[in-house]
Amino acid sequence: MITQKIFQKELVALDEWLVTYLTKTSTEPVLLESMLYSIQAGGKRFRPLLLMGTVDFFGGTIHPGVIQVAAALEMIHTYSLIHDDLPAMDNDDLRRGKPTNHIQYGEAIAILAGDGLLTEAFQMIGESLDLTEQEKVWLMTGLAKASGTKGMVGGQVGDLAGEHQQLTVEQLASIHHRKTGALIEYAVGAGTYLGLPQENFTCSNHQIMEDMTCFAQHLGLAFQIKDDILDVTGSEALLGKRVQKDQTLEKNTYPALLGLTGAKASLTNELASARKALQTVESLIKTSSNHYLHQLIDGLEEKDGE
Amino acid sequence: MITQKIFQKELVALDEWLVTYLTKTSTEPVLLESMLYSIQAGGKRFRPLLLMGTVDFFGGTIHPGVIQVAAALEMIHTYSLIHDDLPAMDNDDLRRGKPTNHIQYGEAIAILAGDGLLTEAFQMIGESLDLTEQEKVWLMTGLAKASGTKGMVGGQVGDLAGEHQQLTVEQLASIHHRKTGALIEYAVGAGTYLGLPQENFTCSNHQIMEDMTCFAQHLGLAFQIKDDILDVTGSEALLGKRVQKDQTLEKNTYPALLGLTGAKASLTNELASARKALQTVESLIKTSSNHYLHQLIDGLEEKDGE
Repeated sequence: MITQKIFQKELVALDEWLVTYLTKTSTEPVLLESMLYSIQAGGKRFRPLLLMGTVDFFGGTIHPGVIQVAAALEMIHTYSLIHDDLPAMDNDDLRRGKPTNHIQYGEAIAILAGDGLLTEAFQMIGESLDLTEQEKVWLMTGLAKASGTKGMVGGQVGDLAGEHQQLTVEQLASIHHRKTGALIEYAVGAGTYLGLPQENFTCSNHQIMEDMTCFAQHLGLAFQIKDDILDVTGSEALLGKRVQKDQTLEKNTYPALLGLTGAKASLTNELASARKALQTVESLIKTSSNHYLHQLIDGLEEKDGE
Repeated sequence: MITQKIFQKELVALDEWLVTYLTKTSTEPVLLESMLYSIQAGGKRFRPLLLMGTVDFFGGTIHPGVIQVAAALEMIHTYSLIHDDLPAMDNDDLRRGKPTNHIQYGEAIAILAGDGLLTEAFQMIGESLDLTEQEKVWLMTGLAKASGTKGMVGGQVGDLAGEHQQLTVEQLASIHHRKTGALIEYAVGAGTYLGLPQENFTCSNHQIMEDMTCFAQHLGLAFQIKDDILDVTGSEALLGKRVQKDQTLEKNTYPALLGLTGAKASLTNELASARKALQTVESLIKTSSNHYLHQLIDGLEEKDGE
């Protein structure tokens, strides 16, 4: 879905850092193995790429502090997948083409691996040698907010509560905004915060943050609609996870509520809105329209034959 | 076990703050209800009391920032109980005299309530209006470290891994130090940090921090040995949880490894060491030996007839 041609070096640094950090902080071999199993399962690193892309968009450097925040983001995302896959939740046995964490290590270790990744994400930012105290507070607090009861955890509860009942598109969008949107919004927000020169964090920069949030919200919703569509049209071999699970679980999805054509139209709309918001910022900071962030938008478009 | 005669006002403020904060940040009623169910289940608030007692020991004020850190500590402790009680872990159905969270709300909500409490603990400190940026970083990072893979989560994995096999007393102490000790150590460490005037955080204060850590480590181990003993000698009615579970699960405990008499002797030793470390600090800061922290130590002593 996403081109990863750029930021190759940074993605390697990210992966190395994740292994180094988790190895350093772990006291139990099976816990480390279980955390690394899911971290190294071949995720697309969409959120880290979005964070790094946003820093780069504003002319910032992908310094070690940025890599560490990207790593924390990926750890939070990975923990959420491990817990979502549990039998009591979505009961998935396949993820990224491999058995899910609890199938491989048992439920107890899977729960604790999730708890560990979630907790270590905060410690990693807090102990960074490459971020200021002010940045750490902003980044840790925002990460908690995006992941917590008003964000990802709340969205997952809404998702479970909505099973077996018909929601409106607005209700579904509210779940998606929290369940997947909040972390995507954080990736863009943190990238903007770290990428914009902070001494210039004045009124016009607050406008930029607002427009970038708008971009992130449309991108996040597009990301989830695309995921909903792929659950219907994609193949298990290509996606590495069970397909048509949403229908089995009677989940509310865009294709279920709007039909496949309607869902695809919504996807196109959200991507257009994301593009427009990004262009607004481009005109403010006077940069060209061929940045990598556009590739991320383009990567979510429906291709012929998909 | 613990006298709560002092800090009554502060404990009321703590409880009110927990409700206010969680209500404000929640978007899903069932999630809020589930989190509050466990938060309000009648816990002894040992960790908050220890934190507030330590701040007070150094002549500090129990200002709203201290209450917020105490609340974050209690949220982390509560999350750990919810997850530990899950069927895949210790499979407990009774806690503080009430059905455990997953019995009441189902496993999915219980897992998410735990995730929510863990995450919100960080947001709560990060958003505090009563702590400096520097304090927030210290407090959030330390909390993550105490709760994470080198601390509580690692200890829980060690505890599970040790079931059905005989450990040495040293191995068991290592599990206890992480599983329950790390958060208790954090309570004392954070209390020392917040209670000691920070402009004076010089060499002698580093010595004080070391001695307080020593106090906390002995107190934490004593706390867990007492818990092990009560699982053998206590009644379900008194403790509000199932007793003699450790034996059923073939858990390593002090009574299992040393017999009841040996466990009681270890408890006495640990309490004596905790008292001695506290007295060392008292001689450094020239204060009397009748502070509330001594009551906390005394409260863990074995009484006749117990």
